[in-house]
Amino acid sequence: MELLIVRDKRIDYDGSAIKSHWAYRNFGVLGNSIVIFRGKCNVKVEEMIDIEDLRQKKEIKSDDMVHYIIEVFEVPNVFLASVLQKLFIVRLCEVLEAYGIKTSRRGDDIYVNDKKLSISIATISPMSIKVHIGINVEAKGIPEEVTAIGLKELGINNIEEFMEASGKALVEEFLKAKKDSLKVRWAE
Amino acid sequence: MELLIVRDKRIDYDGSAIKSHWAYRNFGVLGNSIVIFRGKCNVKVEEMIDIEDLRQKKEIKSDDMVHYIIEVFEVPNVFLASVLQKLFIVRLCEVLEAYGIKTSRRGDDIYVNDKKLSISIATISPMSIKVHIGINVEAKGIPEEVTAIGLKELGINNIEEFMEASGKALVEEFLKAKKDSLKVRWAE
Amino acid sequence: MELLIVRDKRIDYDGSAIKSHWAYRNFGVLGNSIVIFRGKCNVKVEEMIDIEDLRQKKEIKSDDMVHYIIEVFEVPNVFLASVLQKLFIVRLCEVLEAYGIKTSRRGDDIYVNDKKLSISIATISPMSIKVHIGINVEAKGIPEEVTAIGLKELGINNIEEFMEASGKALVEEFLKAKKDSLKVRWAE
Amino acid sequence: MELLIVRDKRIDYDGSAIKSHWAYRNFGVLGNSIVIFRGKCNVKVEEMIDIEDLRQKKEIKSDDMVHYIIEVFEVPNVFLASVLQKLFIVRLCEVLEAYGIKTSRRGDDIYVNDKKLSISIATISPMSIKVHIGINVEAKGIPEEVTAIGLKELGINNIEEFMEASGKALVEEFLKAKKDSLKVRWAE
Amino acid sequence: MELLIVRDKRIDYDGSAIKSHWAYRNFGVLGNSIVIFRGKCNVKVEEMIDIEDLRQKKEIKSDDMVHYIIEVFEVPNVFLASVLQKLFIVRLCEVLEAYGIKTSRRGDDIYVNDKKLSISIATISPMSIKVHIGINVEAKGIPEEVTAIGLKELGINNIEEFMEASGKALVEEFLKAKKDSLKVRWAE
Amino acid sequence: MELLIVRDKRIDYDGSAIKSHWAYRNFGVLGNSIVIFRGKCNVKVEEMIDIEDLRQKKEIKSDDMVHYIIEVFEVPNVFLASVLQKLFIVRLCEVLEAYGIKTSRRGDDIYVNDKKLSISIATISPMSIKVHIGINVEAKGIPEEVTAIGLKELGINNIEEFMEASGKALVEEFLKAKKDSLKVRWAE
Repeated sequence: MELLIVRDKRIDYDGSAIKSHWAYRNFGVLGNSIVIFRGKCNVKVEEMIDIEDLRQKKEIKSDDMVHYIIEVFEVPNVFLASVLQKLFIVRLCEVLEAYGIKTSRRGDDIYVNDKKLSISIATISPMSIKVHIGINVEAKGIPEEVTAIGLKELGINNIEEFMEASGKALVEEFLKAKKDSLKVRWAE
Repeated sequence: MELLIVRDKRIDYDGSAIKSHWAYRNFGVLGNSIVIFRGKCNVKVEEMIDIEDLRQKKEIKSDDMVHYIIEVFEVPNVFLASVLQKLFIVRLCEVLEAYGIKTSRRGDDIYVNDKKLSISIATISPMSIKVHIGINVEAKGIPEEVTAIGLKELGINNIEEFMEASGKALVEEFLKAKKDSLKVRWAE
Repeated sequence: MELLIVRDKRIDYDGSAIKSHWAYRNFGVLGNSIVIFRGKCNVKVEEMIDIEDLRQKKEIKSDDMVHYIIEVFEVPNVFLASVLQKLFIVRLCEVLEAYGIKTSRRGDDIYVNDKKLSISIATISPMSIKVHIGINVEAKGIPEEVTAIGLKELGINNIEEFMEASGKALVEEFLKAKKDSLKVRWAE
Repeated sequence: MELLIVRDKRIDYDGSAIKSHWAYRNFGVLGNSIVIFRGKCNVKVEEMIDIEDLRQKKEIKSDDMVHYIIEVFEVPNVFLASVLQKLFIVRLCEVLEAYGIKTSRRGDDIYVNDKKLSISIATISPMSIKVHIGINVEAKGIPEEVTAIGLKELGINNIEEFMEASGKALVEEFLKAKKDSLKVRWAE
Repeated sequence: MELLIVRDKRIDYDGSAIKSHWAYRNFGVLGNSIVIFRGKCNVKVEEMIDIEDLRQKKEIKSDDMVHYIIEVFEVPNVFLASVLQKLFIVRLCEVLEAYGIKTSRRGDDIYVNDKKLSISIATISPMSIKVHIGINVEAKGIPEEVTAIGLKELGINNIEEFMEASGKALVEEFLKAKKDSLKVRWAE
Repeated sequence: MELLIVRDKRIDYDGSAIKSHWAYRNFGVLGNSIVIFRGKCNVKVEEMIDIEDLRQKKEIKSDDMVHYIIEVFEVPNVFLASVLQKLFIVRLCEVLEAYGIKTSRRGDDIYVNDKKLSISIATISPMSIKVHIGINVEAKGIPEEVTAIGLKELGINNIEEFMEASGKALVEEFLKAKKDSLKVRWAE
């Protein structure tokens, strides 16, 4: 699994990066990958993946986020996508704990002091599993009905360092799960 | 997903419960299920699933454990088995946190104060995903080279209550991951 | 499997309901589902699923039909879609037999006295199996080359009752097939 | 799909024919196949596939049956196995109707006048889908608690003709379902 | 697997034939198929499958090619698509060897005397595996940076005969691989 | 894909190495792998994978062979196993061509001057794809009805060099096919 951290520019997330092969098309990164970048978030209605959000006409936006675009070329099973997403979310919580921040996970959302730190979606393309996770850098530009929080309010000011630390942790988590799957025999 | 907590008797775990349909054969529990019971652990060599353990001739045993046998009738993909196992482990950590216990997860192992609280294995049968998790009630009868800890040493004395609370949490986690997988559209 | 019978309004079928998550998008029905409604049928060319129909430039229309939109979140295998569709058709024949009507099944079509009572299509989306079945309420507005018949000509005038009886039967059929698949061990 | 009707000898069914490649091993029939033969039925406990039968310690036996062993090399999905089995059962009912016999299907069982005519099981091997159907020729040697009936009591005395007619019908049913699956485009 | 050789007309390849069911839509050929035709090649950007080509803004064109459009209704696994494509390419090399031409295979490209004879792509639709192979009849109209060669320069002037010989060989290769997969038991 | 060439000892092949995880159990090689070793071949009847061989009571033996045991943790689809096997066989032919040896491939067999150089089998375990290829070092100890040839008769005396060259070529072939599968978008 390749890890690419985009440091030299901001990229805004409008939802289109959830499509298959986004990392390869845009960065030449082939196969399983995590691309991490920083930028605004404003998901276009036509790119929304969560039909519940569509039904409730939710807005998904934030002025400044760290974005994780993960693509895994395993069997395109949406339950696997959902479970893998939760595992990545958990690992991000563990990274935050290492920063001394007490988090609370609710499904695929990270909360700190009852304030929402993150958004996330997981789905499949016909060829791969795709996950997006966004973590607020600052709780600005967020839909009014959401009480949010950002990394800076939590004392994490070196965002690039956080991108790197969290990126490495997610890759490690993926590789551990993969390795464990290869060393077990099947059961009757 | 059906949850069955065996309260009226002890059952020892020798590894054979990892076979498919164990819950249905023994308790008439059909389909996705979590069966929780209490008993010794002493995995027979011929039932060992982790080939790394076999290669290292590890012993897997404990005098008193809470055992979780989970069967999920999804596509028998061993990477999904491995990822799902980690998610269940994480959820058990979160349950322990709710008891006020600070845990540390290492892959599929739960540690408290650098002492090992649990064992776990995940694999597939030709029909299903199977996960076993065992949590020490007391750190007795454990292989010498392992520094272990048990629930009682952590102040959890009402084991049956713990079995119930953790069982409900695992079911909830599974259903949440499943539900999330059903409400997303696919991506191009 | 959730059963939703739309009683309070008519819905016309133009073929677009065959898309994945139609039940969730329109009615909030999550997961495996059968939605039954009544309305016209006039499938737009761009929504046609059967390429044979497209090649022959067939029209698919009727002035008044009972429509069944079935979605099953199993492995998106089109042979399974086709076999499941036939089983649902058979069950509808059995429901009609219980009304005292002698039917004749030809593949996925129901005939009574050599007159066509139904239309049907089965396919997959990248996430699910989708089946549409339409049963004429009256044999009106049907392409000229088809000799058709409707429920009313067969003496079934309480259409809502029929929708309910047939819907329950289809759900029962699905659950029986599912249950049977969970209680068998695999063979060598 | 190859159809083989064994005419020159009797073969007793002890359950072992449910294993994969039985048709190829014994008759050189490669790929999708239906093998039809006549003989006793007495399923050995170790060959039983239905765990419900095992739990209830049911006997599965009959002195004289027409046996259908079906193997389909599709994705080894046990829900597909179960649905396909029901479709074959339905088709056998339709064959019996053509003989003027009024049948009643209950899941995968065929009844005539509330008497059980058939037994059936469907499962998967790691490579294929396997179905066994047995139809009583005479209702002899059947477990006491079952009220059974056989083909001869129904006026079907030319068993070989029945084997041929029903075999051809099952092949036709399979090919129709397969063909239908190939002529539909996928849905969004 | 059906083989269709289009002899009575030229068909230009613009990339759209890679879509699923192209053979059925255009020629009524159902199921696994190889359609072989002759015509120009000029792949439209929006039809390009190879993202590497897209990234490099490559042109894919030739004035006169023999085209093979292969569709296989197996599990839509893109690694299988890629491996199957290579096997077909190899078989074409073997056909050329039988013409006395010494070829050199580089992945999915055929070279003769370091000159490129062919282009190819393999991918999946949500329902099938699709492969396109194009072999230059003459090395004309080819992007300047490519040193190409065609069948005529290699002394093969009876193109229709070549289409037939190579088509039969590809079908034979497919059927052999399929047959071999049906006669082996699974391994523990 | 890991390549392990066993140089320090001979290993006889009795067929049991076709089981899943053989490379991990015996050499600690995890995941996709090719293990190459040299030794006798004498496949025990109970380890035979090719049912055709079993039916014909063929013996599979040779006094001295180079053995390739390949395991690929992709979807356990036996058609993929069969196609991948042929591609590996072809690549071995190409390696032999580089030695100046003219080979002739017949399915999964390599012939030189109408003499059989190799044996091979491909199948699946419930977790992986497994391929065995054996190439005669000398044509000794081979069943009488087979006209065989070995590497030494073809002038290849440095067997270890051949093991290395061919092993690297097979890994390269696998990685190329894998890479190609990752750089293509899906088709409609």
